[in-house]
Amino acid sequence: MKKLSVVKIGGNVIDNPAALSDFLEKFSKLDGLKVLIHGGGKIATEISSKLGVETKMQQGRRITDKDTLDVVTMVYGGLINKNIVAKLQPLGCNAIGLSGADGNTVVATRRVSQSVDWGFVGDVEPSRIDTTALCALLEAGITPVFCALTHDGCGSMLNTNADTMASSLAVALSREYEVSLIYCFEMEGVMRDVNDSDSIVGLITPEVFDTLLNDGVVKDGMIPKLQNALGAVEAGVERVVIKHARNLCCEAGTIIKSQ
Amino acid sequence: MKKLSVVKIGGNVIDNPAALSDFLEKFSKLDGLKVLIHGGGKIATEISSKLGVETKMQQGRRITDKDTLDVVTMVYGGLINKNIVAKLQPLGCNAIGLSGADGNTVVATRRVSQSVDWGFVGDVEPSRIDTTALCALLEAGITPVFCALTHDGCGSMLNTNADTMASSLAVALSREYEVSLIYCFEMEGVMRDVNDSDSIVGLITPEVFDTLLNDGVVKDGMIPKLQNALGAVEAGVERVVIKHARNLCCEAGTIIKSQ
Repeated sequence: MKKLSVVKIGGNVIDNPAALSDFLEKFSKLDGLKVLIHGGGKIATEISSKLGVETKMQQGRRITDKDTLDVVTMVYGGLINKNIVAKLQPLGCNAIGLSGADGNTVVATRRVSQSVDWGFVGDVEPSRIDTTALCALLEAGITPVFCALTHDGCGSMLNTNADTMASSLAVALSREYEVSLIYCFEMEGVMRDVNDSDSIVGLITPEVFDTLLNDGVVKDGMIPKLQNALGAVEAGVERVVIKHARNLCCEAGTIIKSQ
Repeated sequence: MKKLSVVKIGGNVIDNPAALSDFLEKFSKLDGLKVLIHGGGKIATEISSKLGVETKMQQGRRITDKDTLDVVTMVYGGLINKNIVAKLQPLGCNAIGLSGADGNTVVATRRVSQSVDWGFVGDVEPSRIDTTALCALLEAGITPVFCALTHDGCGSMLNTNADTMASSLAVALSREYEVSLIYCFEMEGVMRDVNDSDSIVGLITPEVFDTLLNDGVVKDGMIPKLQNALGAVEAGVERVVIKHARNLCCEAGTIIKSQ
């Protein structure tokens, strides 16, 4: 099986032009087949505000009414995605910018909740991921770059969490490739002490995770992130790596494996 | 050689939701391999106005300063392109939305003029069109949908005329396929008398074109359109068809051939 890196960057890299340039240069040098998934950043909120579209957040997630869907489709699928592709080309990385609607790659269902009207927020349906277009592109030497937009299969785009988009694609691609899923992070990895950069946990397995959880080392937003990572390795991804974007090409960060 | 239809729709279809739905349904039913190129329409001007970005036109073309480039990248590459893709999926057409930067497909050079600063307007460099990604997608059963954005190969997106984008892609693809280039038009075709729908010119060859030009039947904006079409058939496209969008699936309109 060929090796494939699925790399996810978040808004902190997108929002910082110098960090983004540095990241794209490193990404272009990464050996072998690769896929990039990017988050959104602050630009959608800025454009929303200029357009008079109110930004409503709930549990750190963007409530996506029709106007907000139009904004994220423009900003994530157009502005950010196409500019990343244009910047990768002169670096020798033949990129192609996609959403989950493209090639019918990622179908999602609208999130239903009794307490919150999420609007056009979509949760990925793992069984409906179709990697036909992706594999054709990868085999033709082309690097897919995804924004975190999906579609409902009935004509509408949907706004999807970028971490989940990355893990879902990584799992689906693990049927064809030996996949490393790399989450670029604002810290060096999972740390026992956030103030001590030497305290990185090198390897997390389900057993280690339980211990870290019991010891209180892993808490808050890190819990679902690691559960998501463990879910991915249990579903076929070879390894998940959590590292700082600047360390993309180095051996660094925390590795999550199934054993 | 396999047959391929390269279809171009303009702003008049994009701006009219009913016409767009009708067109997409017909496009999805079109037999064989196909590529869609779409223009921009009025949405970019509306969004520009809301964002406080002044729209400047010259000779019917949009002067594209940096802020305008961001708007067209959002609107053409994101909002319009991704919504077309999402709408084609439930029609059984597995579409993928692209710009000229994607797959390094269409490189353009910034237009230089002594009298007008066009900004980020790009003219296609025919010799630098790369159909590798396109052919891989077509062979995988996927239908590419292009907005009229290109890139300069140095990291920047560029705004390009959609008619030229369509003819340049059609010519490049004619090395691999027998290409019909179909321009969907607001009229039934080239007409001897614009008030008489029975006066459509069925076939235009270079000889017929010269006669129509001398007779004053072809004038104004139709001259460069037909010159562009004749250039495409001379460069390898099998035929160019100019017809109304509603007639996409019928034998109708004006056919331009090299002889």
